[in-house]
Amino acid sequence: MKRKNWFFEKELPGTIQKYKIGWRVKKRIFSGKSKYQKIEILDTFDLGRIFVLDGIIQLSEKYEFIYHEMISHLPLFYHPNPKRILIIGGGDGGVLREVLKHPVEEVFLVELDSRIVELSKKYLPFLNLKNSLKQKKVKLFFEEGATFVKRFKNFFDVIIVDSTDPAGPSLPLFQKRFYQNSFLALKKEGVFITQSGNFLDQISEIKTAIKNLKNFFPYVKVHRAFTPDYQGSDFSFTGGSKKINLEKFDIKKLKKRFNKLMTKYYSPEIHWSSGILPKFYQEKLK
Amino acid sequence: MKRKNWFFEKELPGTIQKYKIGWRVKKRIFSGKSKYQKIEILDTFDLGRIFVLDGIIQLSEKYEFIYHEMISHLPLFYHPNPKRILIIGGGDGGVLREVLKHPVEEVFLVELDSRIVELSKKYLPFLNLKNSLKQKKVKLFFEEGATFVKRFKNFFDVIIVDSTDPAGPSLPLFQKRFYQNSFLALKKEGVFITQSGNFLDQISEIKTAIKNLKNFFPYVKVHRAFTPDYQGSDFSFTGGSKKINLEKFDIKKLKKRFNKLMTKYYSPEIHWSSGILPKFYQEKLK
Repeated sequence: MKRKNWFFEKELPGTIQKYKIGWRVKKRIFSGKSKYQKIEILDTFDLGRIFVLDGIIQLSEKYEFIYHEMISHLPLFYHPNPKRILIIGGGDGGVLREVLKHPVEEVFLVELDSRIVELSKKYLPFLNLKNSLKQKKVKLFFEEGATFVKRFKNFFDVIIVDSTDPAGPSLPLFQKRFYQNSFLALKKEGVFITQSGNFLDQISEIKTAIKNLKNFFPYVKVHRAFTPDYQGSDFSFTGGSKKINLEKFDIKKLKKRFNKLMTKYYSPEIHWSSGILPKFYQEKLK
Repeated sequence: MKRKNWFFEKELPGTIQKYKIGWRVKKRIFSGKSKYQKIEILDTFDLGRIFVLDGIIQLSEKYEFIYHEMISHLPLFYHPNPKRILIIGGGDGGVLREVLKHPVEEVFLVELDSRIVELSKKYLPFLNLKNSLKQKKVKLFFEEGATFVKRFKNFFDVIIVDSTDPAGPSLPLFQKRFYQNSFLALKKEGVFITQSGNFLDQISEIKTAIKNLKNFFPYVKVHRAFTPDYQGSDFSFTGGSKKINLEKFDIKKLKKRFNKLMTKYYSPEIHWSSGILPKFYQEKLK
């Protein structure tokens, strides 16, 4: 095994390396450092192009749609009529692409690292960022998300937190204060969602998300999706809602509204079933 | 990375090695060759003890319950009153342990390789084979499963195929004739299930299982479960039924019957949701 032909991921922040995943590399496209993180883009044989921050895969050409569809359509379909959306992180454009499939009126995208937007436009065309940014309804900001959200009260219908793992530049997005400010920035029917790591190695991250959300939101719910791009693969999205009961979910209504929205992983049935956790996860989360 | 401290899996039969998964090894417990295959047992840091055949992990101490619960309880709960069960393969005892949680009357376990039974009794106590084999209702045979099943007509309520991947000794279990003989060996309400590989790398295996089953069984259904022990992780179980409509699934009835059966992954809700496939799998299976 020649190392140069393989990309081995680093262990996730807060975990000990007990297993290794490596992808056979076709071509190394880009490697550099921004002010905030190490950025790599590689072509692999299995996943197509991959986007790597600080040694951890953030998305692959082959499977990125799973994460991006789930983190976007879960909150946008929980909300009855989402018009104004805030995306925190997500400078690659994947979440934005999905959000724009809905009849929204205004999307704020707040990315800390402007290099991510530049590189995604250039090297990750499947995320469609170039075209998304042409739309007038999209507003791009290069700022720290936890600070940005403080400026708004009763303003957004949905907030989506598409962050990296809880380390370095993402840390403020995992603190209680951020959840409080997100609560305040949402309108009265507002829905919040954050990625919260995988169920196998990052259970404490999910527990923290639940705890932080429960401080402010009356309805909190964890969802799962199979994301082969990520270590652990069974990935969590934790949602909070101010008024809409996330447990009382009318799948028939959703089916009507869903209609012809183009997705590859998400569907009303998957939405429903993503909220069902196996017992041993339920036990872990107690 | 010192190779001796890691166990890297071989690629699955019929796939090209585009990615690698390695587990940090605490101790190598056993390594040897039976008449049919190479057998290894290792202690790992992440998965606990693992059981490896021809370079592929068959089960781990940490997560074996997921596969074993799903492949057992799906057919046993589809069937209204399963009394006589045939397990093909499964010499490690994992499926048997789950089947014995039901009020069954007779279980036939047909394993090709007697070394697996010996080694599991000795090194994999969590599979409980020693105690299972003490029960009078359990009958153990060391034979080729596809040949064994031919001897029975209208005899079993449920057949469970817990095989290795389609290569070498398992090949007869992936042929059309075996499905026909299984159909004939089942009673009129009989239910059949087989492992059929993962959705990412082994889609042709699932398609073959569906095709073979549809030749004989009026009801065929694919289920998924997240199995971290296996490459690809999103794993399939393909079921066939002679009379019971697998789509008309009464979850309320199941909940009553399920009652206090001890499981960690399987539940009536998981049963139901395991039959929901994301769109891109549905497309692949067309």
